[in-house]
Amino acid sequence: MTNNVVNYVKKANYRENSPLSSLRDFAMKHDVPIVSDEVINLLNVLLSVSAPKTILELGSAIGYSAINFAMNSEACITTVELDEGAANIAIKNIGDLGYCDRITLVKGDADTVLDDLVSSGKKYDFIFIDAAKGQYLNYFKKCEYIINDGGIIFCDNILYKGLVSGVRSVRRNKTIAYRMKDFVDYVMENTDFKTTLLQSGDGVLISTKVDG
Amino acid sequence: MTNNVVNYVKKANYRENSPLSSLRDFAMKHDVPIVSDEVINLLNVLLSVSAPKTILELGSAIGYSAINFAMNSEACITTVELDEGAANIAIKNIGDLGYCDRITLVKGDADTVLDDLVSSGKKYDFIFIDAAKGQYLNYFKKCEYIINDGGIIFCDNILYKGLVSGVRSVRRNKTIAYRMKDFVDYVMENTDFKTTLLQSGDGVLISTKVDG
Repeated sequence: MTNNVVNYVKKANYRENSPLSSLRDFAMKHDVPIVSDEVINLLNVLLSVSAPKTILELGSAIGYSAINFAMNSEACITTVELDEGAANIAIKNIGDLGYCDRITLVKGDADTVLDDLVSSGKKYDFIFIDAAKGQYLNYFKKCEYIINDGGIIFCDNILYKGLVSGVRSVRRNKTIAYRMKDFVDYVMENTDFKTTLLQSGDGVLISTKVDG
Repeated sequence: MTNNVVNYVKKANYRENSPLSSLRDFAMKHDVPIVSDEVINLLNVLLSVSAPKTILELGSAIGYSAINFAMNSEACITTVELDEGAANIAIKNIGDLGYCDRITLVKGDADTVLDDLVSSGKKYDFIFIDAAKGQYLNYFKKCEYIINDGGIIFCDNILYKGLVSGVRSVRRNKTIAYRMKDFVDYVMENTDFKTTLLQSGDGVLISTKVDG
């Protein structure tokens, strides 16, 4: 794909005057990474088709994707954020847009929260993973216990600006790159799930749990 | 996306020894364009999530995607092919793999077949469009009458090797490029559907009809 194609796709997926525009502008201004419009639209197609009742998000950032989930489904959403500052902004945004009743933000480390959820026996129809890049394999293995049959695990930022495929293998990022490769290999070989790795956005991996 | 990323994604989505391997090899050998592994995996995730009972395909080629639909769903499939030679190969492949009971191939022009389907009142849960590139807008408008609420219209080869975004705007292909742009604009603005345009494969557009 050339830059022309990437730009065309970006432009085609962009919608002005969405209720999320102000959050998108804030994120751009403050250099907060948020989900691309292409991936947001893909998520919304999947939400529409699968109609989840429960969604878990690892990595709230400023609440952009959690609010989008609330706007495009009837699900109850739990979103987890480690960074205190981001979590507080997310809570404010969720309140401002009127979604306090359906979005619960848990401040904490995704890994610890997952352990608690596994112990609790609670299950989810849709899990969105967009947290610490070096931990995706660890997160996914725990999510296997808490995803319902027929549910979707959607992982963003898999290709991580070209890291996995070796384009930017600078030393400090090599560990993350190797871990991400291990993660992709693990999920693609996992016969409990049907999975696709897509070039979209910065690389997404979508897995659906085959009915047991 | 760089070539490295594209190649990594290709490799990650590839599965050796799939029952479809011989068809894939035949297609490669005879230069028949078939759906990429990335898009096949995406289709299979969507089939798993949406569990369609009826699928319509425009553009059978050698039957590769129709057989994949049969293998990854319980749907009854109607597939349409204009080219007599390709249609005969598809019919043989469908028979060889034992899917005559669930796949019906209609020899004919997709546009005419769509007119007949619109008149008949028959509806589909999943429509896959991979036929004449200059006709996508025309096809889509007719498919709007025959897609069920909650159904999916999946269009392959939207970016058509970079044509839409102007990378290869050689004169003879310009008409197709302009028409494809009109098609993308029409669908992205259509509020009866939720739609995403993805860079995946050679560009796919996925629309789901919002429940009326």
